[in-house]
Amino acid sequence: MSVYLHDIPLPEAKARLQSALKQADLWRVLGTETIPLDENAIGRVLTEPVWAKISSPHYHASAMDGFVVRAEDTLGAQPSNPVTLRVGPDTCYLDTGDALPEGFDAVIPIENVESLDERGESTPAIRRPASIRIRAAVTPWSHVRLLGEDIVQTQLVLPAGQVLRPVDLGAVAASGHQSVKVARKPRVAILPTGTELVPLGSDLKAGDILEYNSLVLAAQVKAWGGAPTRFSITPDNFDAICARVAEAAREHDLILLNAGSSAGAEDFSAQVVEKLGTLLVHGVAVRPGHPVILGLIRRGGSHAAPSDVGTRPTPIPIVGVPGYPVSAALTGEIFVEPLIAKWTGRQPQELPVEQAYLTRKITSPGGDDDYVRVAVGKVGDKLLAAPLARGAGVISSLVRADGLVLLPRGVQGAEAGDAVDVRLYRSRAELDRTIFCIGSHDMTLDLLAQFLSARNRRLASANVGSQGGLIALKRGEAHLAGSHLLDPETGEYNLSYIRQYLSGVSVKVYGFVGREQGLMVRRGNPKGVKSLRDLSKPEVHFVNRQRGAGTRVLLDYQLSKMGIPVESIQGYNQEEYTHLGVAAAVASGRADCGLGIPAAAQSLNLDFTPLFQETYQLLIPKIFAESDLLIPLFEVLDDREFQQAVVNMPGYDVSQMGRLMAEL
Amino acid sequence: MSVYLHDIPLPEAKARLQSALKQADLWRVLGTETIPLDENAIGRVLTEPVWAKISSPHYHASAMDGFVVRAEDTLGAQPSNPVTLRVGPDTCYLDTGDALPEGFDAVIPIENVESLDERGESTPAIRRPASIRIRAAVTPWSHVRLLGEDIVQTQLVLPAGQVLRPVDLGAVAASGHQSVKVARKPRVAILPTGTELVPLGSDLKAGDILEYNSLVLAAQVKAWGGAPTRFSITPDNFDAICARVAEAAREHDLILLNAGSSAGAEDFSAQVVEKLGTLLVHGVAVRPGHPVILGLIRRGGSHAAPSDVGTRPTPIPIVGVPGYPVSAALTGEIFVEPLIAKWTGRQPQELPVEQAYLTRKITSPGGDDDYVRVAVGKVGDKLLAAPLARGAGVISSLVRADGLVLLPRGVQGAEAGDAVDVRLYRSRAELDRTIFCIGSHDMTLDLLAQFLSARNRRLASANVGSQGGLIALKRGEAHLAGSHLLDPETGEYNLSYIRQYLSGVSVKVYGFVGREQGLMVRRGNPKGVKSLRDLSKPEVHFVNRQRGAGTRVLLDYQLSKMGIPVESIQGYNQEEYTHLGVAAAVASGRADCGLGIPAAAQSLNLDFTPLFQETYQLLIPKIFAESDLLIPLFEVLDDREFQQAVVNMPGYDVSQMGRLMAEL
Repeated sequence: MSVYLHDIPLPEAKARLQSALKQADLWRVLGTETIPLDENAIGRVLTEPVWAKISSPHYHASAMDGFVVRAEDTLGAQPSNPVTLRVGPDTCYLDTGDALPEGFDAVIPIENVESLDERGESTPAIRRPASIRIRAAVTPWSHVRLLGEDIVQTQLVLPAGQVLRPVDLGAVAASGHQSVKVARKPRVAILPTGTELVPLGSDLKAGDILEYNSLVLAAQVKAWGGAPTRFSITPDNFDAICARVAEAAREHDLILLNAGSSAGAEDFSAQVVEKLGTLLVHGVAVRPGHPVILGLIRRGGSHAAPSDVGTRPTPIPIVGVPGYPVSAALTGEIFVEPLIAKWTGRQPQELPVEQAYLTRKITSPGGDDDYVRVAVGKVGDKLLAAPLARGAGVISSLVRADGLVLLPRGVQGAEAGDAVDVRLYRSRAELDRTIFCIGSHDMTLDLLAQFLSARNRRLASANVGSQGGLIALKRGEAHLAGSHLLDPETGEYNLSYIRQYLSGVSVKVYGFVGREQGLMVRRGNPKGVKSLRDLSKPEVHFVNRQRGAGTRVLLDYQLSKMGIPVESIQGYNQEEYTHLGVAAAVASGRADCGLGIPAAAQSLNLDFTPLFQETYQLLIPKIFAESDLLIPLFEVLDDREFQQAVVNMPGYDVSQMGRLMAEL
Repeated sequence: MSVYLHDIPLPEAKARLQSALKQADLWRVLGTETIPLDENAIGRVLTEPVWAKISSPHYHASAMDGFVVRAEDTLGAQPSNPVTLRVGPDTCYLDTGDALPEGFDAVIPIENVESLDERGESTPAIRRPASIRIRAAVTPWSHVRLLGEDIVQTQLVLPAGQVLRPVDLGAVAASGHQSVKVARKPRVAILPTGTELVPLGSDLKAGDILEYNSLVLAAQVKAWGGAPTRFSITPDNFDAICARVAEAAREHDLILLNAGSSAGAEDFSAQVVEKLGTLLVHGVAVRPGHPVILGLIRRGGSHAAPSDVGTRPTPIPIVGVPGYPVSAALTGEIFVEPLIAKWTGRQPQELPVEQAYLTRKITSPGGDDDYVRVAVGKVGDKLLAAPLARGAGVISSLVRADGLVLLPRGVQGAEAGDAVDVRLYRSRAELDRTIFCIGSHDMTLDLLAQFLSARNRRLASANVGSQGGLIALKRGEAHLAGSHLLDPETGEYNLSYIRQYLSGVSVKVYGFVGREQGLMVRRGNPKGVKSLRDLSKPEVHFVNRQRGAGTRVLLDYQLSKMGIPVESIQGYNQEEYTHLGVAAAVASGRADCGLGIPAAAQSLNLDFTPLFQETYQLLIPKIFAESDLLIPLFEVLDDREFQQAVVNMPGYDVSQMGRLMAEL
């Protein structure tokens, strides 16, 4: 029934599309238009070179406010032997930019001239003296902007393919043009399909999927220089999709058919392409994104472009874009951007590439070109790449991504510490003001990020638990770590762990927040969970934090103190990486309870039973604590407005915020 | 009469403006607006953080096409001990993205399931079997996208100050929003003033200046996120300018008053600002661009914003922008961009900075922050910065600039070979595909640039003459050099010079063009110049090429052969750097004749008397001749279309183009 997808390598997929487009005479600038030379021309691409129609300046111009002379008339002028020139026959005043009168060849700046009145007396009048006296000779063409000094008529001003910038418009104007010939914008139809899709703003029920891939694709197309059209959602119906595609084909240059590109029962894209034209590729060996479809369809119907009358109508390329948002966005970058570049005659975008070191191992199946999103930070001299969530559905990982690491086909993965090439979405300058915070999760870190962003710092945080943070500090892979590791023997937080993990590193420990830890349960506490003892009840499902998290350490310490075996707790091995993750598990019914902070419980409207009070601190290596990068951090910790915002969240105490608690 | 300008250091000028704006409560985001979440939102700046209104996914979703089960029902399933689950009570089929029904907690991908019909027989039907058979147990939540896996309700999605990118729009949509709150675009009025200014498209006479600064400024404002309004030209009339400024003040946030910012007789800007408000700064110690004016003017008239009713109207900042185009563009970058950044709540632009080596000395008066435009190329491992024309009027230097070098106040200059920090306008990727060509000027180099640009190479050429090119090759500062140095003793071109200048460098010599050299004169040859002998006539003014140019070598060789002393030639010391420069000098009447190539003569409609035939070759160090970078160059040399385009210019022969002539 359905064509089963068969992944081919990316270069081969691109080559097939390119060769089909070449055959259809579509591998070129699609068309040109002449647009007026105004500010709306920026970003457009020249389709032919601009040659100068006139020179600039187009005449010999005075480069100063002053008096124009014949250089030969000034010969012999010296301090002791001034030369007097009569205004009228011998000289006259020119403003900067005025044309030199015929026969004159130099300008004497006004400050080097003595003005004389009719009787030959010195006069302060600047503008209309009867004559001037000079005390130095000048060479021909001094203080003159020569005709063509900037641009000579007929010279190349800008090459074809230039993406117009503000200064380019000036040069085009200066060389005598009033309009520019640019590539017309490729018209791209974006067709979301899927019975499960609902438009933004719908009342959501389980199973409804918000349709926003068309938004991201349209924004990409616009940013790359195309003209997007977003169609409304078409349900999973073969005939309806065929009709929609045929309609879109009439007046567009490219169709992006979103979802239905895989090989499931309701994945019609491949069949649609086969029915309406030629399926070139079904499946590309890239991750995420592999169920990509590439094809050409016939341009049918009565709305064929006038130029097609009497000739064989040109086909139109179609891309079946996978449904997961990360796959969709990546498919845009890999296939659509280069096509728009070709069609407008500009170079495809090239992200800057820098070498960075992986903060943890990544694995790859090896059969695909695997694009891994990474957060990038510069700690000391080292550029670090921290792999983000890999799932194709996790659009927040695209937002948080500072770059992409490509693990090419045949490579099975890379180890922590390996040097990898990162294609950077952010500039070096942005990375230079990024504070890399690895460690325990707390909900105030979002607030901190927000306040830092107003102070020209970006906070990139990775939640790997308190112990993970210590390890990152030891390896020189973070500027700071949030930590709340209780030492059961001393009752102190963090210090013994720092001594154990961070020997040889000078660390300052700053107070951040005191916070409650307790049990989160659904509203009304249906299973009656009130203490850690209740976790052993057979009807209770627990959700845990990951090993190394301070909250996990706290739980294990309290369980052992109370003599509760972990084996008695259902769900003890079910791990989440953040407080919000635990809260979401409880809110969704996946678990009945979890240990965490009240702010997370409040966020998702859960009940909360406080059990413990704990101390969450910031550990900062001395070298970074004293760096310019972190100055804004300490400002924020001192900022009443920030402290108030933290206290407004439930269960927080800021009495020690920003205080230096220890130096090790 | 006029306020005399007094330059102050740039940081002080910025501080004065900032402090005045703070006092007027204008050093902040000007205002916000809520806009729909569509593709037009890209580039806009968030004025408040986006917090998630819903989780994403907002339900537990199947991550695969497959059958949903209770994990506990699969316990014990093994290859030898399959478990059968009835469709209906125990399992059902889900598409990717479908919601898990209540009580179910795992999905088994369809490919791991055996479908059974009513009789319990294996059946290929995929969708509606009566039951399924599995041969492996699954753990809870396997192949499930958990509620909140991507985004948990209440978490920070994007911070305020974020400039929206396509993927950001997706994350905002996924977290339950349909609109975004962004900074409104600052309204910027651009007022060109000057009696000498004429609009684009005017019939030009000497002294007319094409007005295009307002175009460049408007395009800058638009690119930086403001909304520009271009006013028509106001003549140099104090009252007219005052009226125009007052008019613009009613409905704008910033006024850019172009030209008239200096201290000449018709420079009214400072007076206008003093009359309508407060002059903060007149003159900033930056080059180019020092006669900058900063001020605040009263917002008057009947069109004051409604919010101002009953309160003291807010003033509006005004920038007096200098008239030279390079100064105007730089004033935009230095003063206007940071203001728009502040007003929209984003970070100011930061150009990436790289270290490069100067190819020649630059001098600076030392009293100003001196911004030097440079061409940048990467030759071998070395990033090189070649200073471009310094004049404030040379807009083509801004177009050719790949970066800016700042010589700070107090620094008098820098030597060739010095390492300097370059703020790059171009990406590293663009620089990596730049061919740096230093040497003799020929008009076909423009054509070559055009053809290379279609092949993903940028040709940056500096015209320093043939000998200058050899020196650049020796220093490793160019990929290739154009050269036509005649050895008078052998009649050969270039070889003896290469031996002399390039000992130790392996160089390949490729044929490029044969060309005529001869005398360019004005139409009709009014002074009757027909041979080099005529250059000595007293009524004839000559214009020469610079020392080191192949054309100069040719001239000197021929003059000495003919026994003509250079002292007998008027204008022998008047030097131009290009053939077009010589042609322009002749066309404009600055000289009567010059030695050069027929294409230059034809360009400017001059008469041409051919005198000599010469050989212009490309000298390429072996290491570059064999590099990937230059492959497209050799393709172009082989390209019939390119050869034809060259032959279409007068006096060119391409019979040796691309041929390897020698290897040294």
